[in-house]
Amino acid sequence: MSRLDELAVIERLTRSLSLGRSGLWSVGDDGALLAAQDRLVVTDAMVEGRHFDLRWSSWSDVGFKLLARNVSDIFAMGGRPTAMLLTLALPGDLSAAALDAFAEGLEAAAAHWGNPVLIGGDTTSVDGPAVLTLTLFGKRGSRLLARSGGRAGDRLWVDGPLGLAAAGLALLESGELHRSEVAVAAHRRPSPKPLLPGAMRAAHACIDISDGLLLDASRLARASGCGFVVSDQLPGREQLLHLVSDSAALSAWQLTGGDDYVRLVAAPASPGRGWMPVGRLTADAGCFIEREDGTLRAVVPAGYLHRFGRA
Amino acid sequence: MSRLDELAVIERLTRSLSLGRSGLWSVGDDGALLAAQDRLVVTDAMVEGRHFDLRWSSWSDVGFKLLARNVSDIFAMGGRPTAMLLTLALPGDLSAAALDAFAEGLEAAAAHWGNPVLIGGDTTSVDGPAVLTLTLFGKRGSRLLARSGGRAGDRLWVDGPLGLAAAGLALLESGELHRSEVAVAAHRRPSPKPLLPGAMRAAHACIDISDGLLLDASRLARASGCGFVVSDQLPGREQLLHLVSDSAALSAWQLTGGDDYVRLVAAPASPGRGWMPVGRLTADAGCFIEREDGTLRAVVPAGYLHRFGRA
Repeated sequence: MSRLDELAVIERLTRSLSLGRSGLWSVGDDGALLAAQDRLVVTDAMVEGRHFDLRWSSWSDVGFKLLARNVSDIFAMGGRPTAMLLTLALPGDLSAAALDAFAEGLEAAAAHWGNPVLIGGDTTSVDGPAVLTLTLFGKRGSRLLARSGGRAGDRLWVDGPLGLAAAGLALLESGELHRSEVAVAAHRRPSPKPLLPGAMRAAHACIDISDGLLLDASRLARASGCGFVVSDQLPGREQLLHLVSDSAALSAWQLTGGDDYVRLVAAPASPGRGWMPVGRLTADAGCFIEREDGTLRAVVPAGYLHRFGRA
Repeated sequence: MSRLDELAVIERLTRSLSLGRSGLWSVGDDGALLAAQDRLVVTDAMVEGRHFDLRWSSWSDVGFKLLARNVSDIFAMGGRPTAMLLTLALPGDLSAAALDAFAEGLEAAAAHWGNPVLIGGDTTSVDGPAVLTLTLFGKRGSRLLARSGGRAGDRLWVDGPLGLAAAGLALLESGELHRSEVAVAAHRRPSPKPLLPGAMRAAHACIDISDGLLLDASRLARASGCGFVVSDQLPGREQLLHLVSDSAALSAWQLTGGDDYVRLVAAPASPGRGWMPVGRLTADAGCFIEREDGTLRAVVPAGYLHRFGRA
């Protein structure tokens, strides 16, 4: 079979993905006309060797996760995904089979979350790691949630376990993936959940936890003009306890591991079934972890940040 | 000075760029809420070693060109730029000075084209070439132009010279940049022009020439259900004649060189001052070059396409 060119790449991708809704513009045109509802927009890139490792994830997993990460952000704003742009910088030696697997994973994720349609993008080659960028549009929910609406005294809630994906990656790296299929799946194919009407009504502020609870909670707290306290007994802890004897490693997974793709909500009362309390916003600035005995430990809100360059 | 982290990168970029318009969302939030007018969207990536070479372009040039390429697409749809998302995969050893230069070039381009505001994006590191993705939103003009409206018999028009950027790159590669500042500038800092009201009324179809006249004309013709003929006496030819003795090289620059960022319009009559005829759409499919004596030569519509992979 001959080498793929740019048009063949687009053709293979669009074979399995739903295409845009209007005859006026289409994939391949200079651009797209958004539907009037497509007012929310998020964007997120995945870089080979940084956000994914092909030793631990298939190309299908990568396609799935690329959409899942963006869907998680749209859900955190209270929206629903509608349309996407896909910009791929792909290594010259990428196989057609890899590309098909990527498209299949992306399509599986799209089928999972309301079938957002592909409306355009860009495809290029790169002499280095693949860089995959997805820009996802969404329609607003009954409200537009932001990070900044939290109030001192609000409790902090999450809609899923913390640290599972970080544990899954650790298991993959140590060759022990058989020890927790759930954790490995959390790393490979995250499954963000939309906000249901009860949570939409209850939430003062919302953020997607992607860089770890401490860092993302500090973002929500700062945007809301607050400090925060989180518990050291976090959702997911029971599942993780049998995987690690070292409680410092367990805490690191849960507090700073990242890749959780659960929503963190500030609300005075429970946002509904499935939401678990993790802490509270405070009037005073500062970040604290609350021990089981009620004492507080000040922490620096660390988490996953990319680092660059020299002076 | 310490290494840059992701937040410092964002801080440096946003220092020189205008930020989003609403207090509800902002750079750093999970996403953005588009203004009701931001209905046009285009996206374009530049990859180090493919779309730019730091031997021939400064980081400031790269920032300028990244926006210019996207503006060119918005102009081809009959729109005006309003807002942008910036997704950067940057090498670990990128300096703060390089980043500042990139932001300065992007800002210079933004100032040139109506100050589209930065509403969000993503920043990550990569162990390889930089991949810079810009997604540009725009508001519609009096009409929405597409590739598909051309009719057999329409003449084809461009709003700028062809082949200048390709010639400029050739001069840079051969160390002869002193021979044409105009050509070198066309490569480094393209200057797409918006469609004026006369052109908006006259145009049946429009496309941005970025991959070369032949390939982009074939896209417009195919989308319009036509074939096309282009002249071998193209705008810019006089400027290029003194740079090259080889007429095959000259034709290659003009027909397939790419990076022109001029608009190609199909219209029965001139779209206005500054528009130059280059050919016509035909009822029969097929791509032809018309010699000065009026004879036609069939050609394959080649141009710049990225190639990938193995079977």
